[in-house]
Amino acid sequence: MASINNNYLKLPGSYLFSTIGKKVKEYSENNPDAEIIRLGIGDVTQPLAPAIISALHSAVDEMGNAETFKGYAPDLGYVFLRNAISEKDYKARGCDIEPDEIFVSDGAKSDCGNIQEIFSTDNKIAVCDPVYPVYVDSNVMAGRTGEYDPQTERFKDVIYMKCTKENGFVPELPEEVPDLIYLCFPNNPTGMVMNKTQLQEWVDYARKNDSIILYDSAYEAYISEDDVPHSIYECDGAKECAIEFRSFSKTAGFTGLRLGYTVVPKELTAGGEKLWPLWARRHGTKFNGAPYIVQRAGEAVYSAEGRSQVKEQIAYYMENARIIKDGLVEAGYEVYGGINAPYIWLRTPDEMTSWEFFDYLLEKANVVGTPGSGFGPSGEHYFRLTAFGSRENTIRAIERFKKL
Amino acid sequence: MASINNNYLKLPGSYLFSTIGKKVKEYSENNPDAEIIRLGIGDVTQPLAPAIISALHSAVDEMGNAETFKGYAPDLGYVFLRNAISEKDYKARGCDIEPDEIFVSDGAKSDCGNIQEIFSTDNKIAVCDPVYPVYVDSNVMAGRTGEYDPQTERFKDVIYMKCTKENGFVPELPEEVPDLIYLCFPNNPTGMVMNKTQLQEWVDYARKNDSIILYDSAYEAYISEDDVPHSIYECDGAKECAIEFRSFSKTAGFTGLRLGYTVVPKELTAGGEKLWPLWARRHGTKFNGAPYIVQRAGEAVYSAEGRSQVKEQIAYYMENARIIKDGLVEAGYEVYGGINAPYIWLRTPDEMTSWEFFDYLLEKANVVGTPGSGFGPSGEHYFRLTAFGSRENTIRAIERFKKL
Repeated sequence: MASINNNYLKLPGSYLFSTIGKKVKEYSENNPDAEIIRLGIGDVTQPLAPAIISALHSAVDEMGNAETFKGYAPDLGYVFLRNAISEKDYKARGCDIEPDEIFVSDGAKSDCGNIQEIFSTDNKIAVCDPVYPVYVDSNVMAGRTGEYDPQTERFKDVIYMKCTKENGFVPELPEEVPDLIYLCFPNNPTGMVMNKTQLQEWVDYARKNDSIILYDSAYEAYISEDDVPHSIYECDGAKECAIEFRSFSKTAGFTGLRLGYTVVPKELTAGGEKLWPLWARRHGTKFNGAPYIVQRAGEAVYSAEGRSQVKEQIAYYMENARIIKDGLVEAGYEVYGGINAPYIWLRTPDEMTSWEFFDYLLEKANVVGTPGSGFGPSGEHYFRLTAFGSRENTIRAIERFKKL
Repeated sequence: MASINNNYLKLPGSYLFSTIGKKVKEYSENNPDAEIIRLGIGDVTQPLAPAIISALHSAVDEMGNAETFKGYAPDLGYVFLRNAISEKDYKARGCDIEPDEIFVSDGAKSDCGNIQEIFSTDNKIAVCDPVYPVYVDSNVMAGRTGEYDPQTERFKDVIYMKCTKENGFVPELPEEVPDLIYLCFPNNPTGMVMNKTQLQEWVDYARKNDSIILYDSAYEAYISEDDVPHSIYECDGAKECAIEFRSFSKTAGFTGLRLGYTVVPKELTAGGEKLWPLWARRHGTKFNGAPYIVQRAGEAVYSAEGRSQVKEQIAYYMENARIIKDGLVEAGYEVYGGINAPYIWLRTPDEMTSWEFFDYLLEKANVVGTPGSGFGPSGEHYFRLTAFGSRENTIRAIERFKKL
């Protein structure tokens, strides 16, 4: 008799964004005149840059012509894209990452979810709290986390590393040594970063303990300060202990186009076994390449024109972030993030819970954000706003904050 | 200390197409004047149809405009595409499959590889022999297959169902009952089919034994005979025991564009647990949607114009199949498939092994095909040719066969 993977039943409901949706819908129906401004979900709103659109049109034309039609893509991705990534994202920053160490995919979310497959189910994971839910959920499904305790809102066998204002939202090196360490910097949801010295400490810790760091740098394009590493491979020895995930979603507005990549250094091992061939096998067996036209769009992000257009978009979002941050400080809020990331992480006033503040903000200002507790128990009393709205809405939202 | 998923080490090398590549390269270098014709790999060669190209251009334009830009897609896929699939692929054939039971993805290969995740690792799988390698390999990675025996070329805990000319390439109901049964019809690599009575027997068997059928119908668009089911849901009771995978790759030339879908009926259960919510959770956690522009391209396949253009392409390939089949029969070969599928499965002459015939064909006719033994031990003494070449090359290849 067929039976299910019981680990799935350990997953608590994923209600964060659906609860938000329901509450907003209900409020809207009861208050049809309210003009609601959404600064909740981390999805971009600016259209794709002209250089990208033009690359897409050209590639589409190639697909309509027998001489230039492209079928299955090469397993690791097209060389033109992997060369551009190796040159512009790595070698230009002094990181020795070769095109063959880059696996092109349909996005960092898939890769972050799938990477755990190549490791033993006995491996113990460590995650930040609060955290992007995919790291934990994919490990629950694989049976690496033990049972969920609704009291603590935590899985029994996961090492949670608190990130709160007390430690500057940078996790401390855990006493119990994890096998796999998920780190995401610039961080979603807090918008905070590690400087190079801090990240080097993590690399040293992982090398000393034979742990693997799974480094999500999906937001690296938003870094504005010099001392903040864009890649973990800027740290000495990282090629011996780290896998890195990158995304075109937030860098160039590809959330609806789907493109990302994962770096697995050739020399990286776990328990004496090389990881590159395992990920290559996984990639070749359960994935069939990102679309040719989307890989050409990705290449356009690295052209002179594409780079400058994409930089402008990021500057637009980061100006939104500045407006939110400055406006909230002026209004008396305690505010974090927003300097090297498109997320603003604010402390709720008057010890309100995250959900109380959600309701308060929706009712009094008609502004929607994301309750911090939705990302983990240490997110309680925090609240996330995103810089991905339009300038006009961002300004109006902050004006309403000031009138609260 | 981090350690790897040791199941990966059980996988024998995946050398089929790389060995073919090496042999062809070597031959080419030694015989620079030889005009090699490739009828080996199952990749399409005709450009995307004009209706699809036009839909892609329109969708690209939408992505370049703030008013029509699309970010993250809905989890299950866009409703416009799921509605078209439900109407045209199912309801039009009398199958009651609702849009909500359809999960749009980046291709049938990913879904076929990932589906096993929602089942217990204790479940025993059955596969045809010969077989498309993804079904087995993805289960090896998950630890469901036991060790590989190089002597028998089989995994210890997998039920292999021989498909040879003795049973008309249709597997017999296994005595030991599997929990999960992978079936692919029209079949890759044999090109053979089950008629409706035969498939109904499998559905009845699965229902009686509480097994789940994982039905890959990626080649359904090539069916030319009336009594051959396009979907397993044409059989009574299939919604209680089957998941179906579909692909736009072979239907409409999307191998380089990436689009497919999986049907998980709402009422389908395993061990009393519904499967729909599990696959929905998997899809939402480890995947982030097929690109908007590609989903619009998929929609265009169902338009009146798109349908007729795509039908023409399939007719083109199937005329190639007819030319290959008739030519080989005329040349004295024992030939199977090619009537309801783009694959021709021939018996090697003079009891040559599949690889001996590969070398013979490459040297004497400069034609490349795929050795049947590469798909499993019961493929020994068979050889696969595909109908995806150009008309001109197909005709020339068969002329050379006749001169052998």
